[in-house]
Amino acid sequence: MKSKILNVSLNRKVENLSYPIIIGDNILSSSGEILKEFIYKKNVIVIYDSFFSVKTSPNNEFEEFVQSINKLTTTLNFIDIPGGDQTKNINQLNEIIEKVLTYGIDRQNVIIAFGGGVIGDIAGFAASILLRGINYIQVPTTLLSQVDSSVGGKTGINSKIGKNLIGSFHQPQAVLADINILKTLPNREFRAGFAEVVKYGLIKDLEFFNWLNQEYDSIFIYDKIKLQKMITKSCEIKAEIIKNDEKEGGKRALLNLGHTFAHAIESFGNFDGRIIHGEAVSIGICLAFKLSNKLCFCSTDDTKKVINLFQKSKLPTSLHDIKKLSISTSGMIQKFKLDKKNRQNELTFILNKRIGESFIKHNVSVNVLTQFLNEEI
Amino acid sequence: MKSKILNVSLNRKVENLSYPIIIGDNILSSSGEILKEFIYKKNVIVIYDSFFSVKTSPNNEFEEFVQSINKLTTTLNFIDIPGGDQTKNINQLNEIIEKVLTYGIDRQNVIIAFGGGVIGDIAGFAASILLRGINYIQVPTTLLSQVDSSVGGKTGINSKIGKNLIGSFHQPQAVLADINILKTLPNREFRAGFAEVVKYGLIKDLEFFNWLNQEYDSIFIYDKIKLQKMITKSCEIKAEIIKNDEKEGGKRALLNLGHTFAHAIESFGNFDGRIIHGEAVSIGICLAFKLSNKLCFCSTDDTKKVINLFQKSKLPTSLHDIKKLSISTSGMIQKFKLDKKNRQNELTFILNKRIGESFIKHNVSVNVLTQFLNEEI
Repeated sequence: MKSKILNVSLNRKVENLSYPIIIGDNILSSSGEILKEFIYKKNVIVIYDSFFSVKTSPNNEFEEFVQSINKLTTTLNFIDIPGGDQTKNINQLNEIIEKVLTYGIDRQNVIIAFGGGVIGDIAGFAASILLRGINYIQVPTTLLSQVDSSVGGKTGINSKIGKNLIGSFHQPQAVLADINILKTLPNREFRAGFAEVVKYGLIKDLEFFNWLNQEYDSIFIYDKIKLQKMITKSCEIKAEIIKNDEKEGGKRALLNLGHTFAHAIESFGNFDGRIIHGEAVSIGICLAFKLSNKLCFCSTDDTKKVINLFQKSKLPTSLHDIKKLSISTSGMIQKFKLDKKNRQNELTFILNKRIGESFIKHNVSVNVLTQFLNEEI
Repeated sequence: MKSKILNVSLNRKVENLSYPIIIGDNILSSSGEILKEFIYKKNVIVIYDSFFSVKTSPNNEFEEFVQSINKLTTTLNFIDIPGGDQTKNINQLNEIIEKVLTYGIDRQNVIIAFGGGVIGDIAGFAASILLRGINYIQVPTTLLSQVDSSVGGKTGINSKIGKNLIGSFHQPQAVLADINILKTLPNREFRAGFAEVVKYGLIKDLEFFNWLNQEYDSIFIYDKIKLQKMITKSCEIKAEIIKNDEKEGGKRALLNLGHTFAHAIESFGNFDGRIIHGEAVSIGICLAFKLSNKLCFCSTDDTKKVINLFQKSKLPTSLHDIKKLSISTSGMIQKFKLDKKNRQNELTFILNKRIGESFIKHNVSVNVLTQFLNEEI
């Protein structure tokens, strides 16, 4: 009997998906107006960092935001979850999902993620798998999430084995970044976010890197004009990179500069707050430059310039700065092998030819890495 | 200070996704050859129903399948999970994901789901969120999964609140349906699968319905030529419907004929095996026809014809047939409200104008449903 072969064809239409990132000062009180087209007469669920709970919040940004959108929505429900990377696990995800489902949602409902990267990542992931996908809006409240995780549609949670190994690509409908709310941020978090900002200059914009080096002081005293420029430029670079590579088939991987090291370092810290993401990225980028230098791709001069800017920002720049984590070479290599960029057991790293020019390096040998890390640890 | 608005654009290319469903007799022993382009020199993880474990299996289909693909893959790992709807929960999903991650996978790895609909749904969902999406292949081993769940890319798990409320759209690379393996299926499961087959005739193909009515005896003594025709036709109808509506924005909902009732009935049964999916679908379709008849959309004659075919197949056709589940009208209505087809609190049902013509009926009133169910319970 001859087998029958049937072809399933799916006419996926060209979808020129586009969504706005609104970057402004003190705009949370006009959130309703700004987000009207997405939330008017909708059932909305706000998933927010419990840091902003009315009782404990030292400020009223969250309250203003809620009042502003409350006028437009049909129903408004709230789920508060703790920030911090330990929250990004499957139990917390399940709790969010089951809670959202008790509100009797349908596919027209909207989730709003109000908080830092952890909140955005887990709330966005929940939105992507609830009823096989509902809409969501990002309101990032940390520098890190405003310049990085809220843009580009990567959502996810951590596995026991590594960071962000479980997730989806699910683009938000809009991103609302209020510069004013950054003042609620602990200084350590602001510095950590700055590491990701510097990364954009390093990947593909020497001029931006130089501007950051020059405007460093104004940025760290929260000059709003400078902050708006800095955040806008960062988002522009990220948006440009993901434009033609939504699902990381190619150049999007450049955004991972420093991150293979960073993810490994973070997992040594068990996500318990001893080292936070941006700090690990700072070390990771410095290691990527040192490795680029060691492999003769990048000059010693550029490498020093990069390390200097991070040091000036009081960010850790070497594995020696985090001795308490007891990092081992073999442990690091084992973690590298879990990286999503790898193909068929080849290790892949993002390296630099110079400041402003990153590239994807496949097939980095374990021997080279072992020797390199032995020198660094 | 004026807000900046930045637009994120994603150039999603036209993607004419297409994948084969291979329907044949005794083809598992040539799986390697058939699936070569997808698994050659790949790291493959087979997620299979523990029913097929070598020790307990009364047959050697699974063994032949493994031997056949083993020659081609670089590594081959196995995860066995129990079949049955209770397996489709977040804990089992997490167990699968963590186990797959211990194999050190990358985005080039492939998952093969070997089993019934439950295995395909949960393994496909795991594939869709592992590293934000890896490839998978379906090898459905039940009639139900061969004609329904393995085709179309719906994956997912059950929430505490209802069936399939958590999941994603993720198309397989290929589907391999072996008619021969259906003989391993308990007769009850085969009958249940037949309910979904009849559904395709009811939705849009009177001729197919009549053919099923006529060839009924040959089908139930496993005439392979008839089975191949039946499965191919079912998949053709499903593929035609999803072709232009992958993500259920419109006509795909027709495939849900009987399913709003069925999902509610099943959740009364707590997925403990007292009622299985196809049985609930059988009752659900009969209720959909009775409701269509009550609302004067469909003739009494057609309604009787439908019920007769299900009765002849020894499938339950009324809520009276499952008294042990203590179903209540209010409970059913509460479950209806969780249905993914609903919009803004309107209840949506798939109803019929005649055999071979289903349609989507929005805004079915709770009063009408209450009266209808009171008569039925």
